[in-house]
Amino acid sequence: MTKVQLQKGKDKRILEGHPWVYDNEIEKLDGSYENGDIVDVYNWKNNFIGRGYINDNSKIRIRILTRKQEDVNRDFFKRKIQDAWEYRKRFVDTSSCRVVFGEADFIPGLIVDKFEDYLSIQTLSLGIDKYKDLIVDILDEILSPKGIYERNDVQIRELEGLDQRKGFLKGPFDTRVQIMENEIKMMVDIENGQKTGYFLDQRENRAALKPLVKGAKVLDTFTHTGGFALHAAYYGASEVTAVDISEHAVEYVATNAALNNMEGKIKVIQANVFDILKEYQQKGERFDVIILDPPAFCKSKSALEGAYRGYKEINLRAMKIINSGGFLVSCSCSHYMYPEIFQKMLLEAAKDAKRTLRIIESRVQAKDHPIVSGYYESLYLKCVIMQVL
Amino acid sequence: MTKVQLQKGKDKRILEGHPWVYDNEIEKLDGSYENGDIVDVYNWKNNFIGRGYINDNSKIRIRILTRKQEDVNRDFFKRKIQDAWEYRKRFVDTSSCRVVFGEADFIPGLIVDKFEDYLSIQTLSLGIDKYKDLIVDILDEILSPKGIYERNDVQIRELEGLDQRKGFLKGPFDTRVQIMENEIKMMVDIENGQKTGYFLDQRENRAALKPLVKGAKVLDTFTHTGGFALHAAYYGASEVTAVDISEHAVEYVATNAALNNMEGKIKVIQANVFDILKEYQQKGERFDVIILDPPAFCKSKSALEGAYRGYKEINLRAMKIINSGGFLVSCSCSHYMYPEIFQKMLLEAAKDAKRTLRIIESRVQAKDHPIVSGYYESLYLKCVIMQVL
Repeated sequence: MTKVQLQKGKDKRILEGHPWVYDNEIEKLDGSYENGDIVDVYNWKNNFIGRGYINDNSKIRIRILTRKQEDVNRDFFKRKIQDAWEYRKRFVDTSSCRVVFGEADFIPGLIVDKFEDYLSIQTLSLGIDKYKDLIVDILDEILSPKGIYERNDVQIRELEGLDQRKGFLKGPFDTRVQIMENEIKMMVDIENGQKTGYFLDQRENRAALKPLVKGAKVLDTFTHTGGFALHAAYYGASEVTAVDISEHAVEYVATNAALNNMEGKIKVIQANVFDILKEYQQKGERFDVIILDPPAFCKSKSALEGAYRGYKEINLRAMKIINSGGFLVSCSCSHYMYPEIFQKMLLEAAKDAKRTLRIIESRVQAKDHPIVSGYYESLYLKCVIMQVL
Repeated sequence: MTKVQLQKGKDKRILEGHPWVYDNEIEKLDGSYENGDIVDVYNWKNNFIGRGYINDNSKIRIRILTRKQEDVNRDFFKRKIQDAWEYRKRFVDTSSCRVVFGEADFIPGLIVDKFEDYLSIQTLSLGIDKYKDLIVDILDEILSPKGIYERNDVQIRELEGLDQRKGFLKGPFDTRVQIMENEIKMMVDIENGQKTGYFLDQRENRAALKPLVKGAKVLDTFTHTGGFALHAAYYGASEVTAVDISEHAVEYVATNAALNNMEGKIKVIQANVFDILKEYQQKGERFDVIILDPPAFCKSKSALEGAYRGYKEINLRAMKIINSGGFLVSCSCSHYMYPEIFQKMLLEAAKDAKRTLRIIESRVQAKDHPIVSGYYESLYLKCVIMQVL
């Protein structure tokens, strides 16, 4: 086995549970390898600390698969996938869920989402892509899906020296699949929806709307396919307005509203959320409940400052147009907007809006997107539910 | 109205939502007052920022009741208590719950717990104690309890120049009251139990045991009246051991086990938790699920360092004796053990124990103990549920 030795001190993060070795942390390499091969990682004292796959084309040179000196083979992946599946069966509704969440399930680079009887998968790095057929075979054995689709049409693969592709790995089948998100029917487009077809990570946060919205006038911003808006209507909102800048959103929300016999119950507006919040404020329009679920405003640490201002602006504007005693559901899926920074931003926005907040719940992504201690990137979604006084 | 002007910059914390003015933050006082009187607070620019009650005997010189120039009278308190009650009706099971949580419900110094048809109250500061009769009258009007008991037998009152006392404010009645905590019956001793008689703040965290314990061998440490242990048994644990250093714990747990027809299902051990965890490790005894719910190890910021070591030690020891894939439920009710410090401690413990953690939920106190932005002290209970790999 090729042996990679880290520079002094660079084992600390790895020992705390982080699975990535960056190219500038390596002291020396003993032995030959091809990109995608399995290598052993040692610290500067020459103690074994992990085994993973290597790729010279990536800044993340090695992704750790295991902390043991065990073989990486079919048995290995089967055990990991079985563990991940048992975890889901214990904690979430498995009719549709994320089955494997890459590093957070100790299989770096692999994403598997289940939409009813179908799987949508991504192999995002060269080292895991090499095992794609094997993994598909194991998924077929454990989950017996009616079909498996590959959504490897993502740019990140090119950085790994992989092509972009999508298509059936087991099938073909109709890639428009109806799932249940809590009590709501949602149409998932496995072939053309975002990422694997649908974001499953807000499921629990949408269910958390239930005690907030009865009889309420609700505004759902960045509504995308209408998830929060439909839940609000289902849980008894008297009036729901959904806003998204995308022209597809109107269509998506209409489709999903029809699926749930909610035609006409949700007013959809195609608009820039920053602008419309300002407009509501100027017109004196007020809401009982506002949901802010923007796309990631920052995808890197360096973009945090600008992102912070963006988050603060929408939260401040929302707080200004919420009736006293109403509720704000504020999300951020930017990893670098750490929980404590997000809280600080909310506090500043409240101060500027001259409002007081009672924090009802500080939620994160759904439990089928686990968080691993030491792998900081695994905590990415924040969802704070507040009463605005 | 007597006017209190703050030193330059000392309004910042108050404007962010914090309700306390410390004695060393005051620039000058205009007008006369007696301890317990209502005064107005102004910043150094002479802008009104709040109205609250003052007490020269307390380091917390003023506690803000309102940010408006409104009268503090029966109507005022009725509105606040009504708001607090509506909040509980929306978010929690109100058969037994905390009805008023002091500053977090904008009534500094007042604690009201409801145990079925009875209320247990505390007026912890002079300013609020003056309104005790009025508040009891309002509680009677809104909640129509069969009885109200005063648990003002707490030392903190002496710092305010108040005596310690307990007894009936409406009654008498049998102060041993049976409540439901989720699906579990618990006996509450309003007269002699801790604080108001019982800690209601772990209710939601105990319910969160449900997916963890089926068929599991469970260890509940610092079990007190047996709350977590009884829930574990109810949710299907195959074996439950409850440990507490207090000799009363054995009796409490036995009483509560009997109430739930669970005699003999919980093995109660009177022991020091630090010692017994070490002993289990030495004997090679292992558990599937361990609950750590210690009393506050630090009650001041200065005690944090020692407390940190204490928390780390029990968590480290627990991690070492959990079977792979088992679960750790780790709590801290020390405010100064902030969530990020608590997480850091868990990470260090995991590293030392050579275990990897998957964070399932990062929970806090139950929703009837609200958290107010800017009033940092209101977030005190952390409950992290982890899988230990």
